[in-house]
Amino acid sequence: MLSRIRIVLVQTFHPGNIGAAARAMKTMGLSELVLVNPREFPSIDATRLAAGATDVLENARVVSHLDEAILDCVQVVGASARLRSLPLPQFDEPDEMAQAVVQNADHAPVALVFGRERSGLTNDEIRACTHQVSIPANPEYGILNLSQAVQILAYEVHRAWRKRPESAFAYQRPVEATPPSREQFAHFQAHLGRLMHQSGFLTQPHARTEEQLQALFARAEPSRKELSLLRGLLSAFETYLPPDEK
Amino acid sequence: MLSRIRIVLVQTFHPGNIGAAARAMKTMGLSELVLVNPREFPSIDATRLAAGATDVLENARVVSHLDEAILDCVQVVGASARLRSLPLPQFDEPDEMAQAVVQNADHAPVALVFGRERSGLTNDEIRACTHQVSIPANPEYGILNLSQAVQILAYEVHRAWRKRPESAFAYQRPVEATPPSREQFAHFQAHLGRLMHQSGFLTQPHARTEEQLQALFARAEPSRKELSLLRGLLSAFETYLPPDEK
Repeated sequence: MLSRIRIVLVQTFHPGNIGAAARAMKTMGLSELVLVNPREFPSIDATRLAAGATDVLENARVVSHLDEAILDCVQVVGASARLRSLPLPQFDEPDEMAQAVVQNADHAPVALVFGRERSGLTNDEIRACTHQVSIPANPEYGILNLSQAVQILAYEVHRAWRKRPESAFAYQRPVEATPPSREQFAHFQAHLGRLMHQSGFLTQPHARTEEQLQALFARAEPSRKELSLLRGLLSAFETYLPPDEK
Repeated sequence: MLSRIRIVLVQTFHPGNIGAAARAMKTMGLSELVLVNPREFPSIDATRLAAGATDVLENARVVSHLDEAILDCVQVVGASARLRSLPLPQFDEPDEMAQAVVQNADHAPVALVFGRERSGLTNDEIRACTHQVSIPANPEYGILNLSQAVQILAYEVHRAWRKRPESAFAYQRPVEATPPSREQFAHFQAHLGRLMHQSGFLTQPHARTEEQLQALFARAEPSRKELSLLRGLLSAFETYLPPDEK
């Protein structure tokens, strides 16, 4: 599905932006890049800024007119810094745009179109789109660098994709985080409670204090290993405490 | 509130990334930049890539150790490409992180900490944080450029901020989009309906076809001006149609 989402850059001036855009795409699982009449491509600067995404550059299509880039697309979203008075349907929020795009890309190609660094897209180019989107930004300074705009919209597309149940996106998890069993946890709580009394910290049966500290440790969600460290620490204290009188 | 959100860059190697990060910050309403032991700063490259955000660079603080950058913060989120086995609370999703950050920044400074381009943050630096976040990405190539990571997390912070009712964020709206009154719209629907019959398009009272086309135009949400253009077009057709027999 992500492979049906095409990034189209129109008349990009700085080849570095092409490279940075390719990298931005690849980090977000996108691979289809089309360049409409780029000022300079291929380019050492593009390759350099692409870092590990030079394959995206190598597979990029170069065309001379926007139409050639989007003919087969069922949805074409023009990214504009400023919404024009042209009455195209517009997405106020990139996340709404991304949900629509991801849904359409299940079936057919969809394009996100970005314009020139200084002047964006022409009115004719916007007219070739089905929708507009702009990235809400600081009203005093809202012009993002081209490759940054690509990164954000690619990120939103990836986000819309991974939030679907069928994407089965696996979040990274550190390896050592096995939780303890309830029995192990209960042993710890009991050990802690016992030492609260033995140390004279709780002279009365102060159920609230005991509960509060136990809740703290519960909230901390210690791993099995951490619990073991805590028990070890409690045992080290215990050697110095007077024996339990109860 | 956004002014209490601090971006901290640790030992950045490429001054261009510092400039691009400053620009990314400013587009998202952030202004507090702290540089921990940058390799080269100030720098022509930083200034150039900052574009219209050179004020952020001018106001940036330079310190020699991470602690100095975050002492007064109530929450410090370390951005890592790879989550470490260090059992810091982690945010799987930048949007969850942003909601927490925006809430805390109502009251006190909060920092987002980014590491070196190649090696990220050291374990000690992660330990100085209260939380970790990573940007979910392509498992085959998930290392974003530093300034791109700053752009995305800044964007998420801005998004969390603008989705709060009290932010009163105003979306751009093109100026000419006044909707028609219900009366004007009803006149149009009636005109359209009449011409569907006069043209012989509907030989029977085909309520469904008439409704379907009327629904299309309703869904299109024509502006007052567009409705006027449509009426003009219908009138132009009308001159050639046989008179209404009903």
